[in-house]
This record gives sequence, structure tokens and C-alpha cells, in this order.
Amino acid sequence: MSSTFGTIFTVTTFGESHCYGVGAVVDGCPPRLALTEADIQPQLTRRRPGQTAIATPRKEDDQVSILSGTEHGMTLGTPIGLLVKNKDQRPGDYKEMAQVPRPSHADYTYQMKYGVRASSGGGRSSARETIGRVAAGAIAEKFLRETYGVDIVAWVSAVGDITARDLSGEALTREMIDQTMIRCPDPDVAGRMEERIMEARESGDSMGGVVTCVCRNLPAGWGEPVFDKMEAKLAQAMMSLPATKGFEIGSGFSGTTMRGSDHNDMFIQRDDRLGTATNRSGGIQGGISNGEPVLFRIAFKPPATISKLQKTVDFSGHPVELEAAGRHDPCVVNRAIPIVESMAALVLADFAVRQRARTGT
Amino acid sequence: MSSTFGTIFTVTTFGESHCYGVGAVVDGCPPRLALTEADIQPQLTRRRPGQTAIATPRKEDDQVSILSGTEHGMTLGTPIGLLVKNKDQRPGDYKEMAQVPRPSHADYTYQMKYGVRASSGGGRSSARETIGRVAAGAIAEKFLRETYGVDIVAWVSAVGDITARDLSGEALTREMIDQTMIRCPDPDVAGRMEERIMEARESGDSMGGVVTCVCRNLPAGWGEPVFDKMEAKLAQAMMSLPATKGFEIGSGFSGTTMRGSDHNDMFIQRDDRLGTATNRSGGIQGGISNGEPVLFRIAFKPPATISKLQKTVDFSGHPVELEAAGRHDPCVVNRAIPIVESMAALVLADFAVRQRARTGT
Amino acid sequence: MSSTFGTIFTVTTFGESHCYGVGAVVDGCPPRLALTEADIQPQLTRRRPGQTAIATPRKEDDQVSILSGTEHGMTLGTPIGLLVKNKDQRPGDYKEMAQVPRPSHADYTYQMKYGVRASSGGGRSSARETIGRVAAGAIAEKFLRETYGVDIVAWVSAVGDITARDLSGEALTREMIDQTMIRCPDPDVAGRMEERIMEARESGDSMGGVVTCVCRNLPAGWGEPVFDKMEAKLAQAMMSLPATKGFEIGSGFSGTTMRGSDHNDMFIQRDDRLGTATNRSGGIQGGISNGEPVLFRIAFKPPATISKLQKTVDFSGHPVELEAAGRHDPCVVNRAIPIVESMAALVLADFAVRQRARTGT
Amino acid sequence: MSSTFGTIFTVTTFGESHCYGVGAVVDGCPPRLALTEADIQPQLTRRRPGQTAIATPRKEDDQVSILSGTEHGMTLGTPIGLLVKNKDQRPGDYKEMAQVPRPSHADYTYQMKYGVRASSGGGRSSARETIGRVAAGAIAEKFLRETYGVDIVAWVSAVGDITARDLSGEALTREMIDQTMIRCPDPDVAGRMEERIMEARESGDSMGGVVTCVCRNLPAGWGEPVFDKMEAKLAQAMMSLPATKGFEIGSGFSGTTMRGSDHNDMFIQRDDRLGTATNRSGGIQGGISNGEPVLFRIAFKPPATISKLQKTVDFSGHPVELEAAGRHDPCVVNRAIPIVESMAALVLADFAVRQRARTGT
Repeated sequence: MSSTFGTIFTVTTFGESHCYGVGAVVDGCPPRLALTEADIQPQLTRRRPGQTAIATPRKEDDQVSILSGTEHGMTLGTPIGLLVKNKDQRPGDYKEMAQVPRPSHADYTYQMKYGVRASSGGGRSSARETIGRVAAGAIAEKFLRETYGVDIVAWVSAVGDITARDLSGEALTREMIDQTMIRCPDPDVAGRMEERIMEARESGDSMGGVVTCVCRNLPAGWGEPVFDKMEAKLAQAMMSLPATKGFEIGSGFSGTTMRGSDHNDMFIQRDDRLGTATNRSGGIQGGISNGEPVLFRIAFKPPATISKLQKTVDFSGHPVELEAAGRHDPCVVNRAIPIVESMAALVLADFAVRQRARTGT
Repeated sequence: MSSTFGTIFTVTTFGESHCYGVGAVVDGCPPRLALTEADIQPQLTRRRPGQTAIATPRKEDDQVSILSGTEHGMTLGTPIGLLVKNKDQRPGDYKEMAQVPRPSHADYTYQMKYGVRASSGGGRSSARETIGRVAAGAIAEKFLRETYGVDIVAWVSAVGDITARDLSGEALTREMIDQTMIRCPDPDVAGRMEERIMEARESGDSMGGVVTCVCRNLPAGWGEPVFDKMEAKLAQAMMSLPATKGFEIGSGFSGTTMRGSDHNDMFIQRDDRLGTATNRSGGIQGGISNGEPVLFRIAFKPPATISKLQKTVDFSGHPVELEAAGRHDPCVVNRAIPIVESMAALVLADFAVRQRARTGT
Repeated sequence: MSSTFGTIFTVTTFGESHCYGVGAVVDGCPPRLALTEADIQPQLTRRRPGQTAIATPRKEDDQVSILSGTEHGMTLGTPIGLLVKNKDQRPGDYKEMAQVPRPSHADYTYQMKYGVRASSGGGRSSARETIGRVAAGAIAEKFLRETYGVDIVAWVSAVGDITARDLSGEALTREMIDQTMIRCPDPDVAGRMEERIMEARESGDSMGGVVTCVCRNLPAGWGEPVFDKMEAKLAQAMMSLPATKGFEIGSGFSGTTMRGSDHNDMFIQRDDRLGTATNRSGGIQGGISNGEPVLFRIAFKPPATISKLQKTVDFSGHPVELEAAGRHDPCVVNRAIPIVESMAALVLADFAVRQRARTGT
Repeated sequence: MSSTFGTIFTVTTFGESHCYGVGAVVDGCPPRLALTEADIQPQLTRRRPGQTAIATPRKEDDQVSILSGTEHGMTLGTPIGLLVKNKDQRPGDYKEMAQVPRPSHADYTYQMKYGVRASSGGGRSSARETIGRVAAGAIAEKFLRETYGVDIVAWVSAVGDITARDLSGEALTREMIDQTMIRCPDPDVAGRMEERIMEARESGDSMGGVVTCVCRNLPAGWGEPVFDKMEAKLAQAMMSLPATKGFEIGSGFSGTTMRGSDHNDMFIQRDDRLGTATNRSGGIQGGISNGEPVLFRIAFKPPATISKLQKTVDFSGHPVELEAAGRHDPCVVNRAIPIVESMAALVLADFAVRQRARTGT
């Protein structure tokens, strides 16, 4: 069940880098939602590698097919099968991995866990697994947008030590985010971020970064105490993504240095509901949305695959020098944008229907 | 099911601050584990308020009773019912809450979600709910320690901007941690942390902080790709605790500023297995433990209950000035220590039996 | 998790025959349902042994306490803890069981599964475990009745080969069912059933029987294809009860001898909805309720505990002659009535909220 | 989640009759199991329609493809995607269904539940959905056979009122079962069963029947009290199949007419373990396998699709006369054999790994 996420609105993903294909089954999507491949493809295309100078030159078509669950362009309420074929399967590139576990990759741990591992690529720890999540997330997102007006936008807020200014309060759109390759909507730093990544690539190295995501127009009342608090499920969702090392909601770690009197979000009257004057809570109190924007940040480490020479040991413990051949991204944060948005949508869609189970709305 | 955590080794908690009692049902604990209340009480006692000058003066006995699932001091393999009676129920202290949602508390969101809320205390968002977790976690911990030798220790690594030195590599024990009220084993800063909290209390304010936790002696191979990666479930577990705002595994957010060549953990031969020379991965690769210590940090915001006057609005949107009466902790990080350890144990125990389901060991 | 049932409206039971107590945690019950112990006790009292000449003379008070989840007599939407203390704990009666597994009891299988077993009573296979189900079921039933007008009634339709006439179409009430000890509302056979049970008791033997249950006023649309079809979850629920050997929905096994043209239920116009002229489907088509009464039957074997001498072997395989001391029911079907009703309510309540998650109604 | 079955060894199915394809994702299958399509196809082929004179003449290839989860003919321990394309999609045959809900079909209930339904075929209630179950079940079965020596065989034990003699104690094999079209290994009745079905077909009618299944060589100790007792999960699994109306374990309904002294299974010494002299328990006591054959029976109603004229009403309640065009099976029990075996395998495989989680064996 560890490839299944959600309680009612659920996704089950399948597929490795070099098998027939990758995909997902979405169960529990409400019926009568207009849905065709055209609703899903854009986010997959945003996720696709080989689009920009700063990403891997692998070319992957990543065209999604809906296998089941819709008819006449509308969901039936039954499981929606989703499939993207694997086209670019060059297992030869990965031969050395048979003997040498790549540092900070999952080769060693998969071998220890399963007693076997995919001979090429990272198996289920590969970024390619996220295709199923993105396809499923696009459906969740459409449901949320059409039913509740929820709007989810993520962007790159840091690459290495280059940090964008705080944009969480602005009316960002995906179009604005996509205007730069790096998907950072702060024009003062986007260019420098890209340069830094190009430098890393040239030196055979890689860069980490931070993604910020905001979810707007949620009603108050979503999120399920106590183990399925909204921030808890968002944290699980984000920390289940490859290469993530940290998660913050609202004020995050920097909130730990504040006094309660500075940190507390005072209530104010806003239109026909209560709002808060500040949003250090990140839109969530007691695990439940309060109607303010849900705001979180995710730390992505520098990708483990580098072409710089690495001194490590093989599976037998013998010292070896490893130099990665093959294709790889020097930084993953810009491609992570649609993945983060998709996981956020999957978390929220499940909360939406769980709350509806309780109150009927 | 949001009060249930785990897949095979599961806990279900129940109880609010001012009902008959709080507790838990642990299902899936292996049979023939020696277990009496004496195995559970110590962590509950560490969690108990009213122990130190820096904590709330409420007196809570918090004596646990095992309701079922053991006989002759041994688990039967059946559900273990656990109950702690509520003794100190002063609902009168909380009367003002009926009209005014406390800032950064869950009063407003519970009301929006359920259309009703506990008239006193924070309902299920109260820290008192964590009693069930701690009782259950003590059982999980005993199972892990006796079966696998797993050792879990957490401590306070920051209060406000006062930060302890990195102690993650040292052989810390709970005895060492408990030598100061603040549970920070760095003698250079522990006293200052306590003073800072006392200052905050005197000014009617509160302080945040950071807890660091290390889990040692895990075998390689625990953790379940892809949605139940070890760091993902740890993140969910920790972010489900009251007042948490952030989670980091291994290098965390600071890892985002490193190059891949500096961040990667090189493999080395260690005794009869592979280890890593550094541990920026935090003991986990691809969501699976690699045999190195699992290391993570949790951000706790300053508690929302303060006695300083706050300008907010009531449920009707009318401006009010709120001054909290009643008892409250000016900082929760030291009491959070056994809670963090317990949640870690619950996460790991479930992974242990899930891996055993796969391979028989 | 095998002690947890349901997806959103869930129950987790705990407790053996001779520990501190038995009970349950109900999670996912909607908020603002009026609820006190007085809503729960009646079904527990109906379940209680020692009430009639045909049942075991053990006296069990079985008074339920609500531990959590309500305030001012109303549900909060949080987990409802339920506890019934064990009073009558005579482990001495069961001493022989240490060496000899009772035929057709769970002594042997529990020992093989867990490597340990409760020294007295049947552990979790004991009928006493059903107390938690009945308490939880009473809550589910109240929710269903108040929200949807659902009405659930079960009765004894056979004892041994004495069979009541088909009463499934009549407007039976619990008051009518309870007019005889045996809880069979067919006056022509109730007396004979009771006599037959008394005869069995006198000869140290036991009797089986059949319970029929009808659930009325369900809306069309409950039940979740494909693995959680309504008849599938009802079957699981009923076959999880002690001593059950068979389950039928609608026409059941006798339907297998009909032709399709005789078996099909023709649609008719009924008030403002479609109904069916006959109900061989038992109110369910394709796993989903169609608005007609849901109708099912459960086979209960004769209880395994008899005082007649039995020639069996002990755990070491040595022949022994076993003569049960202690107290036991010669027939369980009449006491099973509230248990069957409770499990039906738990199944339906979960379907109700799952459907509401889909459509909002 | 209602399209997912199992706790650790799980299957998620997808697909309707007339979409791109039907299939399944198997998660939690242990790694290093030899597996190719050749292990799965035989049961799919046995399930396929159009094979015999007594079945529907539709021709379906039903060739399965493994999409993921294996490499070099061996499972990786990751999700196994399985796909069978739909070839024969004649939606035109079903046009009348748009206005008229077919009696005892799921047209009406799907419409009421989802507000939409597949315009052709029975959607998820179609027998075609079982393809995913059979493909997944073949994997479960291989795991059980190779790891534990478990052997599962089902056969037709009744068609209408023609009943085979009790064959549950004989060493039946699938080869023996497949020697007749009807898959009844009692030569005295098999021919008559087939004739009866041919007669029904000629008169535009359909026949019901009973399938018996035996699972041998299970170790004692499988099955999870209390809601996931082995008979409870078998009952859910079987009652989730299209057209099922009843389930019996061991003595079933006929056991209700016995006295306890006749019904109890006395223990005997058998080789190196305890066995029972009789098997009225059906291999299960207290929900846990006792090492004897697990034995159960399933009632299948006569298929609802008949070509005889039926007087019913349309969705608006207006009387109509319905005469089914298209293709249909006059009896489904012989094609149900591999489906029943597959569901049994899925139930047992999950219990196997759940017990291994507990004890390591």
C-alpha cells in the first residue's frame, strides 16, 4: 500500500525508469468531472526533462493515455487508469551500478531492502516515478478548481544561497512562474540562479534549492485531526518526493525564534468571514485550514548524480573511483514545480471529500 | 481514521482535555513482549507538566492503566487498550473562549470544521491528546529495543535564537538529556535557554525552539517507497504534533546550499556492512534506512497561549482585547522530548514489521 | 488494524474476557449528534447474558461509559471512547484449557498464531469482544436513524430445523421481536424453538440457528464497487462474528435453483422513485443499494462449548476426555440479534458517509 | 479505495467493459519471485468467454501485459502493473439501456449513485472487471504455492438443482476440473448440467449454480481477528464478485441443524501437528486457519441478462417490454472458477504476509 496515497480520493502509482511504462490509478474521483488527456498533459509537459538548457538533454515524450474511468470526456466515478509509456530506455548507461552503489542514491538501500534492484536507473526512487503523481495531481487539481475555486502555485524561491524575495503574498500565476527557465518569478535573481546552475553543470556538479508553494481559496475546515492534520499530510506528501530534505509550514524554522506575542495571528473581520492579519500559521490551525492561503516550503538537496569523480566503495567494500556517465539534471527544483503542485492537489482533494463526508458540503 | 496511525503496528488515540480520560489502542503489537504499566509510565512522567519551574504548574498525575491485550505481564498480540484519566478539569477557566477564538489556536478552525467544539481546552488539538501517543510509543519503543536494539534519543537543540552545538554524533542518553530542566545536553547553553524562557514567562510571553532526534541501530532496509518513505512518515508524525512548523532530515534546509559533490555521502566499509563517511542523508536513501543513524529536527513555534494582551476579534467579528487567564507553558520543547521519541518509535515499529512481512526478518 | 472496521465511520475494538474491560473507539462519527450512554445501553442490555432461561446464568452488568468525544450530550466529531468493565472474571473455571485445546474453539489456532493465548476464555474470539461492536453499532444506528430514517431489525428465523415463516415483508419492530425469549416473532414456532434449546441444554448439548436481518429506508446509491460492494461488506461484518458459518443476501443459495426470468426483479414506479416488484436482489444491485429493503440471513453453528464428554487430544497429541465445566449458552442466536443489528449499522453508516463524500448528500 | 483489496499484499483494479483496457496494480508482492506473463495468462485464458458451447460467443483475446515491477523475469518488490486491452467494443448493442434500466442489473443503481453511468455494458459491475482480479490472483497464487505449497482448486458443485456429490475430500486438480465444459468433476452430473444450461439458452433464459473451493496446505495461524477473520475476508472477497448471493464456510447453513456434539471437530494427532477428525469448521477456528483444508461454497444467481421478454419500466417509470439483444452467458459458474480461485489467493497471500509481519515466518 506504500504506493497508494489518500483515504477517499486516492492515487496508486506504478512503474520504474526502464519498464514498459509508468502511471497511476486514481480512485475516488467524483463523477461528472469533465476530463480528457488535455487536462492532464500540460503539467506532465511542465515536468518533462529536456526542455531547457539547465535540464537534462534526455528527450521524453511523456504523453499520457487515460485507460479507464471516463466516457464522453467525463469521469464516471470509477478508477481512472493513467499510463505514460517509457520510450528512452538505455539500460547500458547504468552498467557500473551493478557493482557500485552510487553515493546518496538508493542503489544500496533497495538492494538491502529487496535483495534485488532494477539494473538500471533508480527503480522506484527515480524521478520518473513522479509522472504518475503529476498525472493524478492534475485531476485532483481540476476537481478542486472547479468545485471550490482552489488555486495552487509553486515556484523556485532559492537555488543554493541565491534567494528570491518573499513573493508569497503576490498574485502569482503559472504563466508568471514559467517566464524563466528556473521558474523563479523574482527577475532580480532568476538569471543568477540559472547561471549558478550552468556553472555547476560545467564543473560536473549539482545544486540544491527551495520550492515555495501557496494554495489559495480553500474554505476553512479542511484537514483531519490528529494524525492527518493538513500540515502533516502535506509534509508526508512533499517529503515523499525524491531529493527532499525539509518541509516548513507558515513561519517554519524561522518562527522558532519569535515570541508568541509576535508570532500569533490576530483575527480580523474579512468580508463575510474571519481572517487573520498575519499568516504565520500558514493557513492552518490545529491541523485545519482557516481560510487563509496555505503556504509551505520544501528543501531539495543537490542531485546525487554528478559527473565529478567520487571516491567510494563497491558492494563488496572495495575502494573505487566513480564517474557518472549518462544524463542528469544539475538541479531539480524547476522541474519539481509541477510535482509539488500535484502532490499539494492530491492532499487537498482528499481533505475536500473527507470534509464533505462529515458535513455534506 | 485520522486518529489512527500506522499500517500494521497501529495506534488509535482518543480523548480531549476535559472528558473522562485520554488514551489509545495499540493494535498489531507482536505477542510475547514483556509489558506492564511500568514500561509505559516513565515516558508519560517525562511528558507530564508541572515538573519544573519553566513549565505550567498544573498538576496531572497521568497514571496509565492497561485495559486489555496483556496477561501475566506479556502481550497477547491483541489490541492493547491504554487509559489515563483526566483529573484536573477546570472548564471555568476557559469561559471567554465561547465568544472569542484565541489567536493561533484551533478554536476557530474546529468551530468551522465541526460546527461545535469542546467548550474548554483545545479539544483534540490540545497537548493532552499526546498522552495516548506517548503511552503507545513506549510500547513501540520497547519492541524495537528488545527485538532490534534500536535506540531513540531526542533533545532540545534550540530555544529562540540560542542554539546548542551539534551533538548528533555523540552517545547521548536520556539520563544525560534529563540533567537540565530544558533537556539540552549542551551545558554551555542550557542555563541561558532556561533563563530566556523564564524571562518570557515573566513578560507573559512564550518562546519557540527546535528539537533534534536521533534513532540508532536500525538495520538497513526499513521504510516503504514511494509514499511511505521513512522521512515522509517521520515528517507526517512530527508535523502532526501540536505547535510544529518544520521538519528536516539529515542536512535539511542547509543542505540546499551545498554542491552535490560536497553533499553526497561516500560509502565506506564498516565492520561487516557498508556505511557512509558522512551522514547528510540522515540515515535514509530513497526512503529506506541505510544503517546509519536516522537524524531529524523539528521546529516548534512559541505557544499560542500567552497572558499578554492581544487585540483580536470575537466570532462575530467585533474587536476585543484578550488576556489569557489559566495555566500555560511558556515553551513546550522540553516537554516535547518524550512525545517526539514516541512518534519516532511508532513510525519505526511499523516499518520494522512491514519489512518483516516482506522478507521474514 | 484487524480490530478496526470501516473507512470513514470506523470502530476499533479492544478487550478480552478477563482483562480490565472491553470497549471500542468510534472515529469519524459526524459532530452534533445527540449522544449519551442512554442511547447505547439498550442494545448492550439486549446482548447481555443471563437474562432468560435459555441463556447462560452468568450475570454481567455491562454498563457502558463514554470516555471521550462528547460534551453536553452531543458528539464533537472526535473519537468516541467506550468502555465496559469486566466484572465476572473467574479464570479458575478454565484451567483445563492450558493443556487441552477445546474442540472447535480457537484455543489451538490462537496458540499457533501468537505462540501464547489468554489463559482463560476465548481471548478475542470470545463473544465478549462483541460488546465493543454493539456499543459502537448503537451510535452508528442513531446516526442512520436520525439522518436518513434507516431502520434495522433482526430476528431468529430458525433454531435447528425449526424454521419460522418468511417475515421479511412485515413491519417488524424490536418490541415485537423481544416478546419471546428466543426473539422469533413467529408465535407458531417460538415456543418450540425454546423447548428445543432447553432440551439441548439438559443433554449438555447446543443448538445452531439462523438470524434474518432487514434494513429499511436506505436511499438508493449506498455501497462502493468493487471490493466494498454492500453485500461484500455485510458478509465480512457478519462472518466476523463468532460462530457464523454462512451468509446470504436476498435469494441466497435458494436463488441458484431459479431461472433468470424468475429471479430478475422487475422495476416498477413507486411513489417518486423506481422500486422493484420482487426483492430477490435483497435491496442491492451491482453492490449498490437500490432503495428496497436490504435483506440477509446468517447461519450460526451450535456453540462449541458443551458439557457432553468429548474425546479429543491435548496439545501434545495425547487422547483425553473433555467435559466442559463453567457456564455456557446452549444457543447463541437470540443474543446475536443486537450484535447483527450493530454490525449492519456500522456497515451502513460507513457507506452513508462515503457516499456523502462523493456527492455531498 | 473500494477498488483496492488487501492490507500488505494488495490489488487495485481499474477498467470498464468498453474503455481502453482493464487491469490491476499489485503492490506488496515480495521481491525475487519468478514472474512473467506466462504465469498469469493461463488463468485469464480459463476465465475468457467464447470457449465453449455453453458460454457467450464473444471472442476476447485477453492477453495480459506486465507494465512494471519485474525485471529479467523476476519481481522487484515494487508495484506490478497489469493491463489487458479491450478489443471487442460494440457500444451499439446497448443503446436501449440509455432509457431502460435492465432488471437486476446495476444500471439503475449506478445512475443513482454516480449521476452518470457507462453508456454500454455494466461499467464496473461487468464481469470484465474481474480480469484484473484474475491477473493479480495468479501472482498471489504463485507466491503462495512456491513459498508455502498452498494449493487452491475450485469447481462447479451445482447448476440449478443438479448437485454434484461431495468432492471436497478428494485430491482434485485443475486438469480434472477442466475435463468438462461445466468444470464439474463429477461425471455423473456434468453432462446433465451442461444440457440444462443449453436448454436455458434455447429458451432465452439463464441458470444459477454453486461453486465449491478448497485451499490446501495452509499452515495453522493465518487470519486476523477480529474483523479480518479468514472466513470474513473470504466472504467479502467472494461476495464482491458479480452475481454472488451467498457464502458458506465449512458446514455452512446445514451446520445450523446439527447439535454441538455432532458439529464439533475433535482434535487428533496428525504427523507432527494436531489435526481434526472432521472438518465442519472448514479449516478455520476463531478466524484463524488450523491447518486443515479451507473449504467454502459460493452461490451464483442466474445471470440477469436474458433474451426472454421482460415487463419492466424505464427510468421515467413508464412501462416497457425489454428484450435483450447482444451476447450473454446463460450461466456463469464455469467461468467463475478461476475468478474464485484468484480471489481466494489474494485473501490468503495477504494473510501470509501479515502473519510473517508478526512472527517472521
